[in-house]
Amino acid sequence: MTEKGVEVGNKKLLLKHYITGFLQESDMELVATETVRLRIPEGLTAVMLKNLYLSCDPYMRFRMTKHDEPNYVPDFIAGEVITGHGVGKVLESTHPNFKEGDYVWGWTGWEEYSLITSAEGLNKINYTDLPLSYFIGLLGMPGLSSYIGFYDICEPKKGDYVFISAASGAVGQLVGQFAKLMGCYVVGSAGTDEKVHLLKNKFGFDDAFNYKKENDLNEALKRHLPEGIDIYFDNVGGAMLEAALLNMRLHGRISACGMISQYNLVKPEGVSNLFLVVAKRLRLEGFLVSDYLHRYSEFLEFILPYVRDGTITYVEDIVQGLENAKTALVRLFLGRNVGKQVVLVARE
Amino acid sequence: MTEKGVEVGNKKLLLKHYITGFLQESDMELVATETVRLRIPEGLTAVMLKNLYLSCDPYMRFRMTKHDEPNYVPDFIAGEVITGHGVGKVLESTHPNFKEGDYVWGWTGWEEYSLITSAEGLNKINYTDLPLSYFIGLLGMPGLSSYIGFYDICEPKKGDYVFISAASGAVGQLVGQFAKLMGCYVVGSAGTDEKVHLLKNKFGFDDAFNYKKENDLNEALKRHLPEGIDIYFDNVGGAMLEAALLNMRLHGRISACGMISQYNLVKPEGVSNLFLVVAKRLRLEGFLVSDYLHRYSEFLEFILPYVRDGTITYVEDIVQGLENAKTALVRLFLGRNVGKQVVLVARE
Repeated sequence: MTEKGVEVGNKKLLLKHYITGFLQESDMELVATETVRLRIPEGLTAVMLKNLYLSCDPYMRFRMTKHDEPNYVPDFIAGEVITGHGVGKVLESTHPNFKEGDYVWGWTGWEEYSLITSAEGLNKINYTDLPLSYFIGLLGMPGLSSYIGFYDICEPKKGDYVFISAASGAVGQLVGQFAKLMGCYVVGSAGTDEKVHLLKNKFGFDDAFNYKKENDLNEALKRHLPEGIDIYFDNVGGAMLEAALLNMRLHGRISACGMISQYNLVKPEGVSNLFLVVAKRLRLEGFLVSDYLHRYSEFLEFILPYVRDGTITYVEDIVQGLENAKTALVRLFLGRNVGKQVVLVARE
Repeated sequence: MTEKGVEVGNKKLLLKHYITGFLQESDMELVATETVRLRIPEGLTAVMLKNLYLSCDPYMRFRMTKHDEPNYVPDFIAGEVITGHGVGKVLESTHPNFKEGDYVWGWTGWEEYSLITSAEGLNKINYTDLPLSYFIGLLGMPGLSSYIGFYDICEPKKGDYVFISAASGAVGQLVGQFAKLMGCYVVGSAGTDEKVHLLKNKFGFDDAFNYKKENDLNEALKRHLPEGIDIYFDNVGGAMLEAALLNMRLHGRISACGMISQYNLVKPEGVSNLFLVVAKRLRLEGFLVSDYLHRYSEFLEFILPYVRDGTITYVEDIVQGLENAKTALVRLFLGRNVGKQVVLVARE
């Protein structure tokens, strides 16, 4: 049954106000709008989407704080609906690239139905035999981030010693599997024993450790990577970056993908051993996946065979229902998600 | 008159003990050895050098502290003669690459005469029409550092906004001139008004400031580089690196050449805004000139025409006499040198 044209209530998740520190559920509010008709207004080029899956991503934390100067992503608007990446089904389209019944991924709202007037932020899904949620994870921006961040930024070679922090997350689990495909020795860190088990037994990491059980991260890295680290894929920043610097090998590469340990701090931690960048001739390089969208089809071509034959696997942590979306976002910043954090809004 | 074979006293500068914090003159001692004969012992392949110029370099500070783990340069031996780069005249040689009367630059001792048994650390000077002291500065390792650090690491383009810290030093003054040759907009920081004047009036920097007169380095950079920084050539690290990160433009490059602001600190400063490496897609890359010795002749070919026609100029701060060598080294770490700090041991 298509919902095109019908009148529906539309639940939305609002950011009530800008925040500092950790996100709380009380910073967000789920509201039900008055009944709206699911129809694109006359003369408007747009796409009417039914949202199916929403992506919980670390970068969203930035958008929840009010910045005086423009940041790399615009701040959310306090009191308005949270936006982000999602997967949806097209109910109606006046945009030439999309038609009713298409599945798409891209920029949408945290609500049941979204009228998308910037359809250039949407991408048609051509592989509907695969789980649709993969297009905000394995086959979406986290996948492309892993691909660019590892192959381009880290310049890996067979035999390299690779360390990945937040290794069971949306990006880390893939980077580890890419590194194994390349013939690297791969160690990951994560924040629970369950995740450590997953790294070693599901994703094929050579070794892994629970950083929350370590008093001394430097010592933990020395124990798990006694030969040192050629490649550090950094998802967390802060104290782990400082410890990794101590353990980098000469000419090591650090891919700065994210620094989630710092996002909720009002005053970020200082990294005091940057001289090691000189002494060990290191390269620390940041990247944003949004600069590499033109590489998406190359990435898909690379990864699809591995996904189809089961060489590469992907773990998602799917929270059911928009009414639990607040919980899903809070879980992400507390590290309670196991694998890619997704909100299932509707099955179809 | 050659001194080959004669008996001489040999003054030497010793590091009395390992240090922490700033170097003091009292940490070193000038001693005169018993009379020695300037002759290579029978059967030894070596070079007997008369030292003419000695190089005062920031990295020497590391060698004065005892490290538990190997550093990128070996620690000095407490109680023994300080070593470093110098220019000397060959009094006698049993090594096939050198002969009496040659001028050489390379690894030698802080003493009047050195018996060099590792002659692979010496390089014959083929351009004796140029000031010999240049071979520990403009035409030596500082020159090659500037060349590699700027052209290779920074990947400069015409029109780039370039910021250089410690800009009047042995390396900075050259990087600024290279950047002007490339058509960049170049701003330098230095620690005295005299140096700032030099940057603007001798080296052709577009602008310069005295960082010691600034309360807020971020604000100083915003004032002098309102468009932001494409390339930061970092010789100092610490608070200046933190301020530069705030002012980097997207896809900026930071060449980490040295971090002299940190070398005398027992606890280095932390840099707390490294997330900007991600948000602005920056590359922070360290290098050591010792990895690039195979590029030395390419560098000479590049720079000699500019030196000969006066396009590139070089300022040295030459302290006279080994008896003032202690002072020269201490001056370097206090930033009292204006230009490349050199000790003249003997004129010929």
